[in-house]
Order: sequence, then C-alpha cells, then structure tokens
Amino acid sequence: MNVEVITTGTELLLGEIVNSNFPYLARNLNRRGFNVLYETTVGDNLQRLCQALAAARERADIIITTGGLGPTRGDITREALAQLYDLPLVFQEGLWQEIAAFMARRNRQLTENNKRQALVPQGAQVLPNQVGTAPGLWLEREGKLFILLPGPPHEVEALCGAELWPRLSARFDHEGTILSRTLHLRKIGESQAATFLDKLIQEQSNPTLALYARRGEIILRLTAKGSSQEAATALLDQWEARARQAVGPYVYGVDDASLAATVGRLLLEQGATLALAESCSGGLASSLLTDVPGSSAYLLGSIVCYTEKVKEEIVGVKQATLAAHTAVSAATACEMAQGVRKLLGSDYGIGITGNAGPTASCGQPLGLVYIAVASEKGCHSHRYFFQSSRTENKLRSAQTALSLLLDELLQFGHN
Amino acid sequence: MNVEVITTGTELLLGEIVNSNFPYLARNLNRRGFNVLYETTVGDNLQRLCQALAAARERADIIITTGGLGPTRGDITREALAQLYDLPLVFQEGLWQEIAAFMARRNRQLTENNKRQALVPQGAQVLPNQVGTAPGLWLEREGKLFILLPGPPHEVEALCGAELWPRLSARFDHEGTILSRTLHLRKIGESQAATFLDKLIQEQSNPTLALYARRGEIILRLTAKGSSQEAATALLDQWEARARQAVGPYVYGVDDASLAATVGRLLLEQGATLALAESCSGGLASSLLTDVPGSSAYLLGSIVCYTEKVKEEIVGVKQATLAAHTAVSAATACEMAQGVRKLLGSDYGIGITGNAGPTASCGQPLGLVYIAVASEKGCHSHRYFFQSSRTENKLRSAQTALSLLLDELLQFGHN
Repeated sequence: MNVEVITTGTELLLGEIVNSNFPYLARNLNRRGFNVLYETTVGDNLQRLCQALAAARERADIIITTGGLGPTRGDITREALAQLYDLPLVFQEGLWQEIAAFMARRNRQLTENNKRQALVPQGAQVLPNQVGTAPGLWLEREGKLFILLPGPPHEVEALCGAELWPRLSARFDHEGTILSRTLHLRKIGESQAATFLDKLIQEQSNPTLALYARRGEIILRLTAKGSSQEAATALLDQWEARARQAVGPYVYGVDDASLAATVGRLLLEQGATLALAESCSGGLASSLLTDVPGSSAYLLGSIVCYTEKVKEEIVGVKQATLAAHTAVSAATACEMAQGVRKLLGSDYGIGITGNAGPTASCGQPLGLVYIAVASEKGCHSHRYFFQSSRTENKLRSAQTALSLLLDELLQFGHN
Repeated sequence: MNVEVITTGTELLLGEIVNSNFPYLARNLNRRGFNVLYETTVGDNLQRLCQALAAARERADIIITTGGLGPTRGDITREALAQLYDLPLVFQEGLWQEIAAFMARRNRQLTENNKRQALVPQGAQVLPNQVGTAPGLWLEREGKLFILLPGPPHEVEALCGAELWPRLSARFDHEGTILSRTLHLRKIGESQAATFLDKLIQEQSNPTLALYARRGEIILRLTAKGSSQEAATALLDQWEARARQAVGPYVYGVDDASLAATVGRLLLEQGATLALAESCSGGLASSLLTDVPGSSAYLLGSIVCYTEKVKEEIVGVKQATLAAHTAVSAATACEMAQGVRKLLGSDYGIGITGNAGPTASCGQPLGLVYIAVASEKGCHSHRYFFQSSRTENKLRSAQTALSLLLDELLQFGHN
C-alpha cells in the first residue's frame, strides 16, 4: 500500500518554517507497514494543489494532505479535493455545532468564516479534532483513499493518535512492517560515535542506521523491515545489541526517552526530590523537567537567579564567594546547588551558572558554564565550554545538568 | 523563473530526519526573486527519482536536487540526471585528484567507491565542495537548468554560499526580488483575524497575504514581488498600512519580533524590572524571556513553585488562600505575582498557576489556568482554559502571561 503525503502552505515554500508534520506521519506510516514513496509541498494555490492531488492519485493508493483546512480563504484543501472529483461541499450542521462548542470552551469569538470548516466534500467522513477547530476528512473514491489533516503539528499528532491510526489499522490488513528504534546517547560527540559505529554503519542494509544530533543529544536510529512485527523486532534486537557493544556506555535510553523523563523516573523510584538554581539556563532546565507528566511528584521548584542579588539573598550564595570567584565559577555553582537544596528541602540540588552569550560577563569568556549537583553526599562542580548560539548554549547547559544528575542517580541512589 | 526542489533520501521518507535543506534553499531563492512552487521528496530509488526529475522539468525552469551524490550505491542522483537526457557519465581525473586531496586532509581512507564522486554527466559543470567530497553539478539542457547539491546541510550551505548564489545571480540578472514581512498578532484568534482581514485577503494578488497560527500566536505574512528591493518594500509598506487598518490593535510586532523581546524592550525603555512565580508553566515563561540577549538587565529572577509548600514558604502565598481557593485560583495567582514581586524587589510580578495536564489537580479542571500581573498599581488576575497537550498548554500559559505583561507596560508604563 503506497502513500504520498502532500504538505500545503506557502510559508513552507518561502522557507519560513520547517516541515515537521511529514517526519511524524512518515515514521508512523512506516511503522504500520505502509510505503511512503513521495512527499510533495505546494503553496496555497488551488490550481497547483489540484495538480499535486491528481499526480499523487496516479502513483499512490493513499494520499494524505496536511494544512489548508482553516477558516480563511487561503485554506483551500477541501475545495481542491471536491474539485478533483467534482463533488459538492455540504454544510454539516452537527459539525458546525461541535466547532461552535469548541470555540465557546476557548472563549473565542465565533465568526462567519468558521462555517467554512463545517463544509465537507460529499461522501467524506469527518475525523474529529479534539484540539482545534479544523476537523480531518477521510474520502474513498475509485480505489483511492484521501485523508485531509489540519496543519498545526500538535493538531496533526492528536488527530492521528485518536482517529487516523486506529482507522487505518482497521481498514487495511497489511503485509510486513517497518519498525524503528532510537537509542539516545550522552557524553559523546557525533563524530566520535560515528567512529565507534563505523563497522556497523558500513555493514548496514537491514536494519539501516542513522546517526544525528538533535536537541543537545546524539541519536542513533535503527530501522528494520520485516515480514512481521516479530521479525522486524528480532532484527532490531540483534542490531541494538551490536550497537551497544560499540557505544553501550553512552546509551542512556531508548525510543521516547529523554534526559528529563529518565532522571524523573529514577527520582520517583528512589523517592527523592529535586530543586534547581538556574542562572544562564534561565529556567529551561526546569521547563524540560516539567514537560514530563507527573513531574510535580519530585520537582519541588526552582529559582531562576538572574542577578547576583537573587543568588545571594534568595539562594544563599556567599557575597565573599561572588567577590572572590565571580558569579561564573565552580564555587558559585556549588553554593547555588547547595543553597537551593537547603532552601527548598530537596534531596538533590542543581546549580547552573555561565555566560550563554552573545556577550560575556563577570570577566569570564563567552560560553563558559559551571554546573553543580549537590546531595547529602556533597557537591561536585563541572566546567564546560558551549560555543554556539545563546539558545543552543542554554539548551546544552540544561541537558548537561540533567545528564550530571543522571550520573549521580545511577551511581549513588538515594536510599 | 520557477524553481522546484527535489529532496532525495530514504531516511526522509522513513521520517528519521527533518528536511532542513529545503527551508534554507527556499528562503535564499525567494530573496533572489525566484518562485519556489514545488518541493518533492523521493527515496534512493532510480526509477522514482527519474520520474520526479521528469515531472519537475514539465513545471519548473530550474530544478534543484539535494542528496544522492555520495560514494555509495544508494547515491543515484548523478545517474538519474544522466538517464533523463541519455548522457554518458564521464570520469574527471582533476576532480578525482581534488577528492583524494580532501580525504587526505581529513585523514580519511580513500576507497574505490569514492571514484563514483568523480563521475560527471557529459556537459555538466562542477560546483566545487570545500567541506565535503561530493561536488555539486550544474547542467543546462533544452532551456532547463539542473543543479545537483549534496545532502548534508552544512555542505549545502557552504556550497551555495561559495558557488551557487553567485552563479545564479550572474546567470539570471533580471529577476527582481520577493520580500516578506511578518506581523505578529495577539489577543485574537485565527478566524476572527481572518474576518477582519477578509476584504484584503479577497483583493490580494501582489503582495499575497497568509494568516496562520504558530507557537501560540497568530501570524500575518505579506509577500511582495517587485522589480527591485525598493519596489517590493513600497508594496509591503502600503499593504502593511492597510492590514493595520483592519487588525492594528492586535499587532504587537513585525518580522523577528517575539512577545519576550517586545516586553523586554519596553521594560528596558521604562527602566523597570520583572520577577515571575511559575507553577504550571514550569519555568517556560522565564526561559522564553531569557532567550532574549540582554534580558539580565530587567529580569531579576523567577521562582518555579511546583509545590504548595514552595508557593507558601518562598513566594509567600497565604495558607488560608490555598485552603479557601486551592492553588489553582485567581487569589493564588495574584498572591504569587505580588509575593515574587516583593521577594525579589521588582517593579512587575507575574504569577502563573493551573493544570497543564494530562491529569487535573486541586479539584480544578484540566487546562484551567490563572495568570496575574502585579505592579505598584495593584494586581489583576485572568482566567483561561487551554485545552491542548501538556507542552502546548505550558506554551500558551507562558505566552499569555507575556501578553498580559505587555498590556500592563503599554497602558501604564512605569515612569
């Protein structure tokens, strides 16, 4: 069963945003045994979108579009599909009531053009959207299946999870599957990981290996084709074992793992709590930790101490330490970690201080960051140089802090 | 002059990586006056790549490919182009020497299959690659221009900067330019903004208008074509003025503006300082603020108060308030904003408390969020329902808090 994805949106053709819907759809379609053979991006232009739909119909069994289901005149995907098969657009009163109720829950003004979103090409089924006003559509015509999805990535993921994946599984019995597995590495660079994995990368055919950097960590993805879930899983197991022989000590998690979720799980298991004092990371470490559902069970809180006064008066860094070592120093990082641990009464404390850029301060060089982890066993401070953009330096500071805490949780434990 | 970009690589169709080459190419092509009308992604499959090249040739003047120029058997873009015009592949000894020298500089083993990278379709010019072994290729045939680029993004950017952009400018000297301008809106939904802009959207041809939601705000993008930078800028100025007549009160910034940078600029201008007490947003509002260079001039710090104890003991929320109204309440939000303002000695204080999900707490519904802004004039608390994912609810909470602060800064000022 061959699939083509059509991404719509002039903002994509202008290069203003990255297409993040397609990787999500492609990953999930492959996992379910569908072959994704083409992706096409077109702007908000009725004629070119119709041409793209017609071309996709020639070479694919299933055509999935994203975007163009909103309330504005630039939202033309419904019209394009209707035009392709000369179908009337039918106003669905029930759907309109749902959209109206959604807008009311959000305290949003309902406008006449919202009614466009209740128009459905004759014969299409509605895929309800729980997190937005644009419903998805499912239309089967002449042996081809068209699936129209909204544009915002969180709506695509919510709608697919709730509606599309179950319906596709129910509709098609497919042969074989393509499975991926992701290993998350820390404390190693991309080129060093590539060197350790060189032999495997040369040998790869099934599964394939992909090594890349993402969000401040190194990712190794294995993708296996098999006649069944079991066959693909066996291949992945075998090659994961081989990969771990090469880079095992650097692997901290698999698939949806993140450093924040991994430290969270260990803190929960050990019944331990955490507090942070963040300077150069500006709250990002706390934000990553609180992205994890249930983090309130172990994260007591954080102090973003962006001035020396807050470091001193709230977190309890000694004035003498700041005067002797500056705010960007190992001593300050440790007093921040210890200070916030004491202030909030947590088992672990993290202190992050440095120069995220673009200008240096404290007479210390740009990109210099100290990170300390404190526990009842004492405090260790670590020194780093992150030489990237301000936001990337913030991310690396935050991720490295979580990685250091992971070291502490793995080596010592709380109980 | 119409351009189509063909991205090659099975890893893209598996959803393993995001296509970051295309936004880079699209941005730079638009800036130089080229119309980018389609992007197509295909895997490492000769037949399908040939079909994609043939389809692109029908609808574009310039066809740019990325990927498939490496040394392995999966690298087939050279072969596909040669096949399209039935051209022989010619081994270029000089190019081979350059590839050998590059590998030697990097201390990399030269292998037999590297020789594939010295094969050039007859009549094509080589675009030297200073940062990798795969050279780019430039072939003009029958009024169409084919440009073959390597896959790794840093190679694409280096090669385009050094070779492609200068050559395109020299070859197509007439094209004019395409400029975009982005207006950032707040306090309005997408459909309401579309209603206010309906007349303009109906009339649009040059510039074109696009309205969409991104990262918790509404974006209106104007894109103008002109014979010169001046002509395109004049069109943008004229239509920006018209757009502001329709939605002016909702526009808070232009182009690279963000809520965090906008409140930062006003705080600086007013010589005012800020502190935050964040519960459900978990440090994200502070992180957005500290993404802005120079934010240490006005952001004193924040307390991420993830437990009632921290709200009470550090931020100073009254136990009676928590008992009477719960932690998710207007009263708690105001006491957080006032408490952190007093604790850190700032001019403005923000309090954010709610249920980000996925499970509710405090006996309050999921997605209910209270946000308060405190100043010497007093404190206002606002009630919201965000009904999305946990991370999206965090983002909306944080962005809405910054928007409320912006109201305060615009209406009252500090001095």
